[in-house]
Amino acid sequence: MTVTKAVEDLANAFRRLSGVGPKTAQRYTFQLLARDRVAAAQIADTLKFAIDHVSHCKRCNNFSESPTCRICASPSRDESKLCIVETPADLTSFEDTGVYQGLYFVLMGRISPLEGIGPDDLGINELMETLSNHPVKEIIIATNSTVEGDATAEFLTKMLAKHGYHATRLARGLPLGGEIEYMDKGTLIEAFQRRIPA
Amino acid sequence: MTVTKAVEDLANAFRRLSGVGPKTAQRYTFQLLARDRVAAAQIADTLKFAIDHVSHCKRCNNFSESPTCRICASPSRDESKLCIVETPADLTSFEDTGVYQGLYFVLMGRISPLEGIGPDDLGINELMETLSNHPVKEIIIATNSTVEGDATAEFLTKMLAKHGYHATRLARGLPLGGEIEYMDKGTLIEAFQRRIPA
Repeated sequence: MTVTKAVEDLANAFRRLSGVGPKTAQRYTFQLLARDRVAAAQIADTLKFAIDHVSHCKRCNNFSESPTCRICASPSRDESKLCIVETPADLTSFEDTGVYQGLYFVLMGRISPLEGIGPDDLGINELMETLSNHPVKEIIIATNSTVEGDATAEFLTKMLAKHGYHATRLARGLPLGGEIEYMDKGTLIEAFQRRIPA
Repeated sequence: MTVTKAVEDLANAFRRLSGVGPKTAQRYTFQLLARDRVAAAQIADTLKFAIDHVSHCKRCNNFSESPTCRICASPSRDESKLCIVETPADLTSFEDTGVYQGLYFVLMGRISPLEGIGPDDLGINELMETLSNHPVKEIIIATNSTVEGDATAEFLTKMLAKHGYHATRLARGLPLGGEIEYMDKGTLIEAFQRRIPA
């Protein structure tokens, strides 16, 4: 925009969001300054507050405003189980199912050479510290079923084995409601090879 | 996310951006807090600064940090021409061509019943004030060639005619590099009906 510097600076700041190009950054800037200054203030304020107050739970590495998060602090969780997930959103997905009552560890990402994220950029040191302070009986590696998620899971499996831990991973196969006609080859091959008693 | 309130508040704030749903808001929140606190601070700071310092040029209604923007304040612009555009981005597109040396008026939107934007929400009062303070000889209505842009142009044409102004609009037809085979029917009809001497 051939406009004032403050507007250009704001559009450039929005471009730092992943997946946001010049057009989207311009759209956000225009909307907030021309039509919705209330939303603008809301974003600025909540962002500033989060920067100042949100850190990581020292046990599970999830976002937390207190040193230990609500889940890790809960007395009703099974401390003998640890489920390793990529992101807080993945944790929420499992919590929504109610299938799991153990604790979590949030890697805050996955190994991704394209994004320049190696093992050292994930919370591996924090994971090992958590394991030495709170030994667990079962570790479930619940990374995404993607190339990057699988690479992360393999790295974790090897590393945990070195320290004497045996981990499990999520089952692979047809998702519920999955129609074979529309399923990708990889899933069909896994579903065939890992077939279960009828 | 089943995470801390500050994180939820931030994700909810991002959802106020147009076109941003829960997944994208979560992605922005995760990226900024987990990976890029520098970008987070940059967005918060530039947004706060823009809220506090960016208002509208009193003559052209474009974003401006000063009462009159750079273009309106420039002595080299032709004050007898006024080009009415929808957004600052449209203004920039014309400026980038160098085809036009007159002044602008930025509506900051277009008539859009779906978005709840009527004539009163555009800078029409400011436009009439500008015209009474700085009478012009030629008015070019340069709204988008969309249903909403056309409705806005028709509204402006009628309103300006009532006040004795005669306005022009941008030419319609094939765009440069436009291949007839791939052009929509509406454009082809206009190109035929408005055909020009060869």
